[in-house]
Amino acid sequence: MCVPGCHEAVMRQLSRRGFFRGVGAATLAAATLPAAVAPARAQTVSFQKAVDLTHSLPPDFPTYFGDPQLEIEKVFAFDKDGFNLNVWHLNEHTGTHMDAPIHFSQDGQSADQIEIEKLVVPIAVIDVKAKAAEDPDYQVSPDDIRAWESANGELPEGCCVAMNSGWDAHVGTDKFRNADGDGVMHFPGFHPEAADMMISDRKVVGMGVDTLSLDFGKSPDFKTHYTWLPTGRWGMEAIANLDAIPASGATLVVGSPKIVGATGGPSRLIALV
Amino acid sequence: MCVPGCHEAVMRQLSRRGFFRGVGAATLAAATLPAAVAPARAQTVSFQKAVDLTHSLPPDFPTYFGDPQLEIEKVFAFDKDGFNLNVWHLNEHTGTHMDAPIHFSQDGQSADQIEIEKLVVPIAVIDVKAKAAEDPDYQVSPDDIRAWESANGELPEGCCVAMNSGWDAHVGTDKFRNADGDGVMHFPGFHPEAADMMISDRKVVGMGVDTLSLDFGKSPDFKTHYTWLPTGRWGMEAIANLDAIPASGATLVVGSPKIVGATGGPSRLIALV
Repeated sequence: MCVPGCHEAVMRQLSRRGFFRGVGAATLAAATLPAAVAPARAQTVSFQKAVDLTHSLPPDFPTYFGDPQLEIEKVFAFDKDGFNLNVWHLNEHTGTHMDAPIHFSQDGQSADQIEIEKLVVPIAVIDVKAKAAEDPDYQVSPDDIRAWESANGELPEGCCVAMNSGWDAHVGTDKFRNADGDGVMHFPGFHPEAADMMISDRKVVGMGVDTLSLDFGKSPDFKTHYTWLPTGRWGMEAIANLDAIPASGATLVVGSPKIVGATGGPSRLIALV
Repeated sequence: MCVPGCHEAVMRQLSRRGFFRGVGAATLAAATLPAAVAPARAQTVSFQKAVDLTHSLPPDFPTYFGDPQLEIEKVFAFDKDGFNLNVWHLNEHTGTHMDAPIHFSQDGQSADQIEIEKLVVPIAVIDVKAKAAEDPDYQVSPDDIRAWESANGELPEGCCVAMNSGWDAHVGTDKFRNADGDGVMHFPGFHPEAADMMISDRKVVGMGVDTLSLDFGKSPDFKTHYTWLPTGRWGMEAIANLDAIPASGATLVVGSPKIVGATGGPSRLIALV
């Protein structure tokens, strides 16, 4: 009952990238889960407007594995039935969506288990548009984080750090996946060392990207995923509209699904500015 | 490809209730769409904590039509594949979920088309728990709205008005649907006259209930739905946890899906208090 071609497309993609060679190591890493970050959020937060950071999600929204991941089945129609109603056949990792810890771990939190305090958080936006325009394989580095902090102060406790690579502008074109002749994609992401820094030296709960993956497109091993998610932190992929909020000072409300056992899922992201 | 029994269950339920006799009238009502409310929200909003108003959504979450409306298909498993991933087969009107205008109209807004300004709004909570405990067929009336206003001032412009009937406490039991021997359900809802008042005499954009329908359970004709949704306003059903927020002063963030053409869908509701 998978959406058309989904399993086959994934297998094709993973095999091309030698992904399965890394599974053993990943299992080991996931076995050593540190305690989740528990942000303190007692202060008063103020805002004046809401900004939508969510892409519209049609059935042909671009996907990591290449094939469509959403089918909308119209079950009732107003003309005939007096109301409209659809059933969705939907891969969790489609559109602007969450990666829950269990997506890349044996027994991490599913989307429904993430504490509400981790879903309303400060958002820090790291602008790497110029670097990504020059090098589509760019990876956000610890130096990028330090540069953000030089301008804005230390990353706030319990925040989400989002990469603004300018990639959301490509969502309607092949440039969003930017696959070469061998099917290897080229888009920016977070370097595993940046993930390490945000885990060990800061108190960050969420990692966001405006691309199809927390890892850069040509990653052969999902190393940033395996570094980040098993520690009890969440990821958010295919964020839209990050140009519309400031580098510092906005609050992110993560409207992630509360479906039991979900490994993530399409989310409504709203920034309060 | 509908989830098991969904079409059959709906037809059974609608036929039992003589629903199809009302379709002609409904079509007529929906043809006269007034302009949507456009709330003004320029002032500063402050909050100190986030409260989750969303039920966890397992496959057996109670449904209006009685049969399960969610199947979770596990497509990849960490042990075998190095990551976990599911595909959902999901009726849009399941769990804590939105009714978009197009759910009960020919050409109203779908969920993805609702303006962001209508998704971050003041929430007014009308407590009818005592009345609903005494009469499960209770309908929120214009008098209930006036009583709320006597205590809290006029309903704020662009707000959501939510019924707290105490029904969320029944979600794990048959009392949530409360069907009698004839299959007719008995739970509270909004009276169509209350809907009329909120459309004509106030500037309300959303109607919320902690039950399975905007209409009370034994409604034969979905009259509140047909009064409310075709005017460009949204509904929210099966809200959880309304006891945890004040009658007045909280802000609701509606994490509704942005799937193109959706007639609604499971939503993450977060109140800022």
